Amino acid sequence: MLRLGHRPDRDKRMTTHVCLTARALGATTVHIDSADRELEERVDKVVQQFGGDTRVVTGENPRRVVKETDLKVVHLTMYGENIALWDDDIWHDLRSGPGVLVVVGATKVPREFYELAHINAAVGNQPHSEVAALAIFLDRLTQGEPLGRDLKGKVTILPQERGKRVHFETDAVTEDEGSP
Amino acid sequence: MLRLGHRPDRDKRMTTHVCLTARALGATTVHIDSADRELEERVDKVVQQFGGDTRVVTGENPRRVVKETDLKVVHLTMYGENIALWDDDIWHDLRSGPGVLVVVGATKVPREFYELAHINAAVGNQPHSEVAALAIFLDRLTQGEPLGRDLKGKVTILPQERGKRVHFETDAVTEDEGSP
Repeated sequence: MLRLGHRPDRDKRMTTHVCLTARALGATTVHIDSADRELEERVDKVVQQFGGDTRVVTGENPRRVVKETDLKVVHLTMYGENIALWDDDIWHDLRSGPGVLVVVGATKVPREFYELAHINAAVGNQPHSEVAALAIFLDRLTQGEPLGRDLKGKVTILPQERGKRVHFETDAVTEDEGSP
Repeated sequence: MLRLGHRPDRDKRMTTHVCLTARALGATTVHIDSADRELEERVDKVVQQFGGDTRVVTGENPRRVVKETDLKVVHLTMYGENIALWDDDIWHDLRSGPGVLVVVGATKVPREFYELAHINAAVGNQPHSEVAALAIFLDRLTQGEPLGRDLKGKVTILPQERGKRVHFETDAVTEDEGSP
């Protein structure tokens, strides 16, 4: 996926949430336009602990990323065609194609990207959150598969009805935390 | 829904995204523990413009909200049972019941809420974002219906393949914006 308009100071938490959401939902690479070494390290730390191979690359030229990709470019914007009303054909085409590059903005997205995108897709035509839009779009695209997978990280969360249970690979011990 | 651990300064943007996501996905009331008049006004402005009747109430006692509700209390936590692996029965019960109170934390959630919740639900057992978790949970719960609805606000976004088109009720004029 590609994140546009990232401002390292102002968008620190939002962009971290974007990256972690993309990772949890199966993205392999997150391109960020502004250089932000700390963000790369922050997400990489989660990947080291919890597994998977999602890579965050910052300081990228977003036009080049979009122009040079072989993937289908889906730009998420509340001004686009509402995915809630899409024909199944569109989903089918996206799933059976070479893959998808999802584009989300932090600030106003330059007109050029509306033109470069194959699809301008609205996760509802209401203002809400790019994290929410990304999450719902990817969940629907992947039909929830990544959410159910085991990433085989050093840290594994063991689902519980109540409380917290976490498995740490290093000492092969499973611990119930004292208090959630 | 109920947002726990909101810190007005630090969580300004995240909690705004939580509220707008809840609204876009059909929530009627958002309870926030800390008092935050600005947040109420910020979300209310969106409701005034874009329609619907979602209400944000801040400065609430979260224990009381949870204890006094007749709704099913679903606490979203990565330590819970993974919704990606739920039986359809669980969704069916939630949809056919009196309604759902979704609980999401900003900071660490006190143990008590794990006990008080009817269900501790994980939107994947990976760390990501409470905005993403809320979005996916509500989208699955409502089967996407709210995303497709017309809220009949003063401002309506008209879905477009490219660019932006917005209808303003006051002057009954539909305008194409010069540049997206």
